[in-house]
Formats: sequence, structure tokens, C-alpha cells
Amino acid sequence: TYGIPFKDCLILVYTAIEEADFLAIDGEFSGISDGPSVSALTNGLDTPEERYTKLKKHSMDFLLFQFGLCTFKYDQKDAKYVTKTFNFYIFPKPFNRTSPDIKFICQSSSIDFLASQGFDFNKVFCHGIPYLNHEEEAQLREQTEEKRSQQANGVGTPSYISPSCSKGPAHVPDEHKDFINRVVEKVEALFSSTEKTVDLEPCTGFQRKLIYQTLNWKFPKGLHVETMEIDKVVKLNVCLRLLACDFYWSKGMQLNDAVGFSRVIHAISKSGKLVVGHNMLLDVMHTIHQFYCPLPNDLQDFKEVTMCVFPRLLDTKLMASTQPFKDLINNTSLAELEKQLNESPFKAPQIEAAEGFPSYNTAKEQLHEAGYDAYITGRCFISMANFLGSFLTPPKAYVSAHSKLIEPFYNKLFLMRIIDIPYLNIAGPDLQPKRDNVLYVTFPKEWKTSDLYQLFSAFGNIQVSWVDDTSAFVSLSQTDQVQIAMNTSRYAESYKIQTYAEYIQGRQQEKEKQPPT
Amino acid sequence: TYGIPFKDCLILVYTAIEEADFLAIDGEFSGISDGPSVSALTNGLDTPEERYTKLKKHSMDFLLFQFGLCTFKYDQKDAKYVTKTFNFYIFPKPFNRTSPDIKFICQSSSIDFLASQGFDFNKVFCHGIPYLNHEEEAQLREQTEEKRSQQANGVGTPSYISPSCSKGPAHVPDEHKDFINRVVEKVEALFSSTEKTVDLEPCTGFQRKLIYQTLNWKFPKGLHVETMEIDKVVKLNVCLRLLACDFYWSKGMQLNDAVGFSRVIHAISKSGKLVVGHNMLLDVMHTIHQFYCPLPNDLQDFKEVTMCVFPRLLDTKLMASTQPFKDLINNTSLAELEKQLNESPFKAPQIEAAEGFPSYNTAKEQLHEAGYDAYITGRCFISMANFLGSFLTPPKAYVSAHSKLIEPFYNKLFLMRIIDIPYLNIAGPDLQPKRDNVLYVTFPKEWKTSDLYQLFSAFGNIQVSWVDDTSAFVSLSQTDQVQIAMNTSRYAESYKIQTYAEYIQGRQQEKEKQPPT
Ligand SMILES: Nc1nc2c(ncn2[C@@H]2O[C@H](COP(=O)(O)OP(=O)(O)O)[C@@H](O)[C@H]2O)c(=O)[nH]1
Ligand SMILES: Nc1nc2c(ncn2[C@@H]2O[C@H](COP(=O)(O)OP(=O)(O)O)[C@@H](O)[C@H]2O)c(=O)[nH]1
Repeated sequence: TYGIPFKDCLILVYTAIEEADFLAIDGEFSGISDGPSVSALTNGLDTPEERYTKLKKHSMDFLLFQFGLCTFKYDQKDAKYVTKTFNFYIFPKPFNRTSPDIKFICQSSSIDFLASQGFDFNKVFCHGIPYLNHEEEAQLREQTEEKRSQQANGVGTPSYISPSCSKGPAHVPDEHKDFINRVVEKVEALFSSTEKTVDLEPCTGFQRKLIYQTLNWKFPKGLHVETMEIDKVVKLNVCLRLLACDFYWSKGMQLNDAVGFSRVIHAISKSGKLVVGHNMLLDVMHTIHQFYCPLPNDLQDFKEVTMCVFPRLLDTKLMASTQPFKDLINNTSLAELEKQLNESPFKAPQIEAAEGFPSYNTAKEQLHEAGYDAYITGRCFISMANFLGSFLTPPKAYVSAHSKLIEPFYNKLFLMRIIDIPYLNIAGPDLQPKRDNVLYVTFPKEWKTSDLYQLFSAFGNIQVSWVDDTSAFVSLSQTDQVQIAMNTSRYAESYKIQTYAEYIQGRQQEKEKQPPT
Repeated sequence: TYGIPFKDCLILVYTAIEEADFLAIDGEFSGISDGPSVSALTNGLDTPEERYTKLKKHSMDFLLFQFGLCTFKYDQKDAKYVTKTFNFYIFPKPFNRTSPDIKFICQSSSIDFLASQGFDFNKVFCHGIPYLNHEEEAQLREQTEEKRSQQANGVGTPSYISPSCSKGPAHVPDEHKDFINRVVEKVEALFSSTEKTVDLEPCTGFQRKLIYQTLNWKFPKGLHVETMEIDKVVKLNVCLRLLACDFYWSKGMQLNDAVGFSRVIHAISKSGKLVVGHNMLLDVMHTIHQFYCPLPNDLQDFKEVTMCVFPRLLDTKLMASTQPFKDLINNTSLAELEKQLNESPFKAPQIEAAEGFPSYNTAKEQLHEAGYDAYITGRCFISMANFLGSFLTPPKAYVSAHSKLIEPFYNKLFLMRIIDIPYLNIAGPDLQPKRDNVLYVTFPKEWKTSDLYQLFSAFGNIQVSWVDDTSAFVSLSQTDQVQIAMNTSRYAESYKIQTYAEYIQGRQQEKEKQPPT
């Protein structure tokens, strides 16, 4: 079975986000890069703009088809975190003849990797939750409005219980006690029947609020409640318990549920909470691209959209690659990071799954599912955050997600394999390394890395970053060697050397020559 | 469970092809068209070259991921056909770091359609059979040769039983009777054990041949046999029975099994048998593209490759759209065609599944799987072929796949939605309709079909075929009106008319201006 229908879980998601201290996310994609190879697309001396442009061009035609969300709520009393993990399978199911027929690329190595991890593709392709981006949602809303004004209003629309009213034990005024008790009895009767709804006597908004508060307090184990008006009768719809963390799209769902998974992203966005991910640039790009709008061409515009959608991001790979962690952690891939953070000088954090939600045993091998990876990412964040507390006087064992100690890591997304720019700074201008020790060398196709080492053998240690098959960047270890290298090349015929500054200037001029698109 | 490992079924496939009178095939793809819409890509006045170019450009990046093969063997004695149906799930699993990392497109409408039919995507992505095209096979062969010459020859390679020796009851010379009986006893013991192999006493090639003949004769129900040399001991590997028509890729398979599914296509090709399909142009293009070589740019070259791979093709959709069937059949989609061919004046053919192979009940709703569609296609072919026999004197109830009556339909593949060219002629030049009643009209973006009807209202009935949003072909019902229409348009400013001949000439000139690619 495939867990519970998506619509029935939305209220759980909303509540989990609302009560959380921070959120962790992870996406699985149908592929990473449609270029010849990942390494050909990531040059060690890319500028942030170049890297963004490459990822946008070569990665956005893949599908983000599994989204993991793990919410972390700190329980002060027991000094532990309580998690709720969700695994969403996502598929752009076309709704009707006018809805867009999405095409996406699959990369066989990525698919094969997921297959080897036991990934269930039927959950994506047969039961995946659909979604719409902002523009599509607006279009559908228009269509639906039109229909609605044509038809008489008949079938009821569900009105979700607002997350804010699920807190605290209920105080029921005396005059409503009888009414509330009758409702509670009816709901309790559901446990031993196959019914899932309770007809309500006519009641006021205040009475409904009392119902929600009472039921959430009496049945906290994943029970959730919503009201629905069908043919003028208000019914109470009760979902007894959350058994799996997988959610699927059910056939009976309405056209106006088409916004589908995008609602979850909207809720994350609106919450304004800290969103943690591991090596999360692609996750962020895909999320915005699929659920909000096509990515802008310009990096600056992308940063602005990102700040709107995710006002507070934190990348655990960047955190782990930054002091004081950098010297203590030698492998920042998620699985390795998690292992190291369970050992001294770090401390494994106290984490427990909320009742009805899946709990993971990190010591055992687990399926590679997005919810699990999100959970592990959140775990890593907690260990690192708490470690920062050990530098305080007096030391603190618990550092909250809102602590000033975390702020230096906000909104900086790890940039893979760039030599001298560790992160993309979403909230401001990027680092501008001088690169005045860098040469841009052009040469015949036949040349190999060894030819470059030979050519520059007089200048000490060098670092080669290939651009294409006839050019590369060569970083010299000493900047004062640059002029000498330039001079030596003056009369060379088989190769050509430019300084990095000359190269950038040349590209800029070329760009200006092109008509704007 | 997923049927039996692909390697174990190859021998069954070879035998089925070898003994068949004709073959029927069908493919399922991850999508049909990556253009804006299928209709935008198929103009009613496309030339065969244009249509081929469009299909090549907009359809070949999808994956053919299920291939159905149904072999039909005529049983003279019982006057019935015996079928063997195979469903192959296909996936380009990368073997090692040097093997190509294939990217393919999925179209959500196609995926959703298959999902609604109960298609099992895990069979494709987790258990799909890999394949190599000719070039990749050659590369791998080179690599393997290198390795082989380096290593000592140790592990045995399976030597498949050649299809030709599976015929006829065995005549066992007296001096070998004891030996053969001992083998038969050992094999019979397998039926009541979990063992799957039998160790052979040392024996000659002739004795092995006797084993094959005897076993195939004694156990015809899908039992198959192969020998394998492991550590110098010859083992007899026996697969007891074929329970499902699905075949999967098993983990233990060797690198030199990487040619995988391509072997099936090679066998079909080598057999030279009649291959029947329904609306099969895309099937043929995908098959060649995936398992032989990238499609040539030129239509003429494509025809030549196709004749090499499939020397004898027959398209049931084209057959059903041609006289004498055209007037009797009003819907040529596969499901509708099948229904009509079960009723007068046609006759439902006598068909039976071979023992151990799946049998289909056409009266019941069936999963939309490629093997079933291949079966139905073959069924339609038989009904139509037999119907042709009713015109003979004396009438014949059975017309074989080799009959002269079928020849007019050979190698003509149905062309969808072209007004005046019903088929692509693989074995020769295409029909060249004059199209001297056709005008090419250019107009402002705002125009709709109704504007064209209005413009040509004086010229009787017209047919409009849109080219893009500012041009269309307009076919007049009478050719003598063309000159009048041309004259009227001479001083028009908002639109422009050319004859079809002028249009083609213009395109030709444009093409010549472009540098060859
Ligand atoms: N997220 C992300 N992954 C990339 C990118 N470029 C390549 N990859 C691939 O993603 C893999 C994951 O890397 P990493 O995050 O360090 O390891 P993980 O934390 O264990 O997933 C790499 O090995 C690359 O194959 C990129 O820009 N972003
Ligand atoms: N095989 C094939 N299918 C196409 C082509 N162009 C579009 N299609 C799609 O394939 C569908 C199948 O058409 P048809 O063969 O007539 O019906 P079927 O026999 O029931 O599958 C059409 O409805 C189109 O959506 C094409 O060139 N070849």
C-alpha cells in the first residue's frame, strides 16, 4: 500500500511545519546533467554566474520526482528533538486536454542508482502527486472560476483546520460541554467501525474550534480532523492515524487539487523557517523551477527569487567545509558526515520520531529515500550547531536553530568543485577572488594535462582546470611568475596564453557584441 | 516475480523465431513527440522526407522500453496457429564507468497512459534488459578481447543450443542409449528438487546433440536446455517451464551479456521472416535507432538500413486502409480493427498459445502490454490474409504469410494523417502526388481557419493544412480554380499565395543556399 492520500495528509504537513523549529529537505532527481559528463560542466574556475548558467541549462530538464521533508521540533522538557518525516512522490500528471504535457529527461546512471537502492518507480509514475507552478495555477484558477460561475454551487469544498488552532488543551465553556461530549463519543465510535465521517449537528464557528481543540488534545497520535460541507450537512472527516510516510495521489481528487504538491512548498515558504539541506543548490533550483516559475537567466534575479521562496537557507555541506568544522571533518558527503558527527568531539543528538511517524535507525542500512536523507541532514545540522555551543563561556550543550551562532552560515549554498569560491551567497554579492595567478591557455586538440605540466615545469606547482578540449586555466602557485610565463609565450605558435583578467575582458566584450535575447 | 532471466529465455526466443511462419512486434515508448504537440508536427501535406525528418528529430530521444514479440506458427494438421508471446522490458543500464550514460525523454501524457493501463515501471527501471547498438558492441568486444588475452581462460561461457537442432524426434543409436537414458533420468529428478543443473559425464559433441534432441522431444512444454562449462565440468542447465512472458535482467549476468536485448532483434533480422506491426513506422525507427545505429539523415539511407534489418515488413494499419479492406473497415485503430475482424464478412482465426506460453482472451479487457498488442496485430493480419483467399476460385480459407496475395502490402508503412500519400514505400520510390490543386498561403498571425474559408469561399470546398501560425496549405477541390485564385491574390497585401510547385522550388533553393552539415 502507498500510505495515505495526499489531500488527507496536507493538514499534517501544515501542522508539522507550523510547530517546527527548523525544516530539512532533500530531493531526488531523474538525472543530474544532460551534458557529456558532470565534470565537463563544472570547471574549477567557474564564476558563480557561469556555474548557475550551466546548472540551469544542463540540469533543469530533469524531474524532481521525490521530495523529502523532515520537520524538527525541540522538546525543551526532555531536551530532545521530535521529527515528522514525509516522503512525497511527485509526477506532473496531465489533468485534462488543456493542461501542459510535461517532458522531462531521465539519465540512466541516476535511474540505475536509485533502482539499486530499492527505489519504487511505480510510486512516482503511477501514484505521484501532481503540481502546478504559479502561472499554471493562475490559469487553472481562471478556468475553474469560469466553470463555477456557470454551474450552480453544489458539492462542498473541504475547509482545512487551520494549523494555529491545534495547540493547547481545550477549555470548553460549560454551555458547550454536552455538545462537545456528543461529538467525542461519535468520533470514538469511528475507531471500531469502517466509517470515516461524522455528521455534525448545526454549530457555530466557535463550537467547531472547540471540536478541533478537543479532538487534537484527546487523540494526539497523528489523528487529524477536517470539516466538509456536503449538501448543506457539515461532516467531520477523521483520519485515524499515519502509518507510512509515503503519500500518494488518489483518483477521487478534484481538479482544484491540481496545485497538489506545490502547496507543501508554499507552506514551507510562508513559514519563513530555517530550511536545511545538504549540497542543496540543485534542490533549491529544481524546487523553484518546478513549483514557482522558470528560473531567471540572471544570477542576481535567481538570488532574489530564492530569498522570496526560502528566506532562510542553510547548507550542511558548506557548514561542514567551513571552520571550525573543516579541520575536523575530512569527508563531507552526507553519509560520511553523519558518521563523523556521531563521534568525538561531536555528540550524537537526541532525536525521536513523533507518534505515528516513521523513525529511522541510522546504524542500519536504509533505503536511499529523500525523507531519510532530509532526516540525516537535519541530524548533521543539530550536531554541528550544538558543537558551536561548546565554544561559549559557559559552554552550552544545546544551540537552537535561531541562535546567533548559526547566522554566519545562513543563505550560503555550497559550490561544488570551485577552487576558490566555496559558496554561492544568496543574500548578497559573491566573493570575488583575484585569480591573478591564473592563466588562460589555448592549445591544439592533441594536448594532454601532461603537456601543460611540461610547458609550465619552470614555474613550480600548477593546477589545471580544463575548459574545453583546446583550452584550460592554469593556476601558478606564485603570482609573480605570471609575467614571466606571459613573456616566454610571446613567440610561441602552437599555444597562446592570456591572463585571467584579459580572458574575462574578452568574454565580456563578446557578450556585449551579441544582441540581447 | 519477474518471469525468468533474459539469458535463460534467449534459446526459447531463438527457437520460436526459427519455427515461426511470421512474427508480430510492438513497442511501447516513454513518449511520442517532444514538440509542442503531435498535430503541430504532422502536416497533412508533408512529403515523406519531411515526415521522416520530423519523426527523427522529435521522437528518437524517447526510449523504446517495452518490446513485444509474438511468433505465429501454422499447424497444418489442426488448421490453427500456435503463438509464443514475449514481453521484454528494456533499459540502458550502464555497465561500467566507460559505458555510455544514456539520457532519454519521458512525456507525462504517455507515462500517465501506461500507468492507467497498469504498466509496471519497476520492471523497466529496476529489471530492464540492457542493449548495445552495433558500434557499442564492437567497442565492448574490443575491450573484452583485451581482457581475455590478459587473463587465463577460466570461467566457462555458456554455449547456447543452436535452434536448428531442436527439431524432430531423436534417433539415438544403440551404443548411446544407456548414456542418454541416464541423462534423462537425472533431468527427470530435477522436477522434484530445487536443483537446476545436472553434471554431465564427459561426452562428445554428437552425444550432446542427442541430449538436446531427446530432451526437447520428451519435454516439449517450454523446457529448455543449455550446457555450461564451469571448472572443466560440463553442466546441463535446465529451465523447467516458462511461467510468464516477462523477462528480466539478473544480477549475475556477465559483461558479455551486455549486447542483451539487441540479440533478439538480430535474430529477428537474420531470420528474414515477415514482420508484422500496426502503424509501425515509429516502432521500426526506434528499433533501428536503439539496437543498430543512429538514424541516417537521409530518407533514402533510412530505407536501405531498414531493408537490411527488416527485409520483409507488413503494416496492418496500412493493409486495413487499403482495398478491399478500406470499404469494410471504418476504424483502423488496433482495438477497433480487431473487433471488426472478428465479425462478418471476416472470420476470427483459430489461434492457440504454445504450452507454457501465455494465452490471451481477446474478449476480456487486457493490460496494455506490448506482447498483447503484438498478438492482436498478428491476429488481425491472419484475418485479413484469409479474407483475401475468399476471392480465389475456388476460395481458400487459409492464406499463408508467404502467399503471393500478401505481396502488394510488403514494405509499405502507414503514414499518419497525410492526405494523399498513404504509406512510406521502404522498398522503392514514394508516391508523388501532383498536388497541383494545392496553394501555399502566407498571412498575418491573427488569421484563423475561418478566415481562410472566407478568402476561398468562391472556390468551393477547401481543405486546410496548417504549416505554422502564419502559413497553411489550402487544397482546392478543382485544379482549374488554382489559376483564378492566384490571379485574385495578385494585389492583396495582407496575404500571399504560391502554388505548391513554387513553394517546393523555394524550399529547394533555400536548402541549396545552406552549407551542408
Ligand atoms: N547537488 C549537486 N550534486 C551534484 C552537482 N554536480 C554534481 N553533482 C553530483 O551529486 C553527487 C553528490 O555529491 P555530495 O553532495 O558531495 O555527496 P552526498 O552528500 O553523499 O550526496 C556528486 O557526487 C555528483 O555526482 C551539483 O552542482 N549539485
Ligand atoms: N505509431 C505512431 N504513432 C503516432 C504517430 N504520430 C502520432 N502517434 C500517436 O499514436 C497514436 C496511435 O494511433 P493508431 O495507431 O491509429 O491507434 P492504435 O492502433 O490504437 O495505437 C495516435 O493516436 C497518436 O497519438 C506516428 O507517426 N506513429
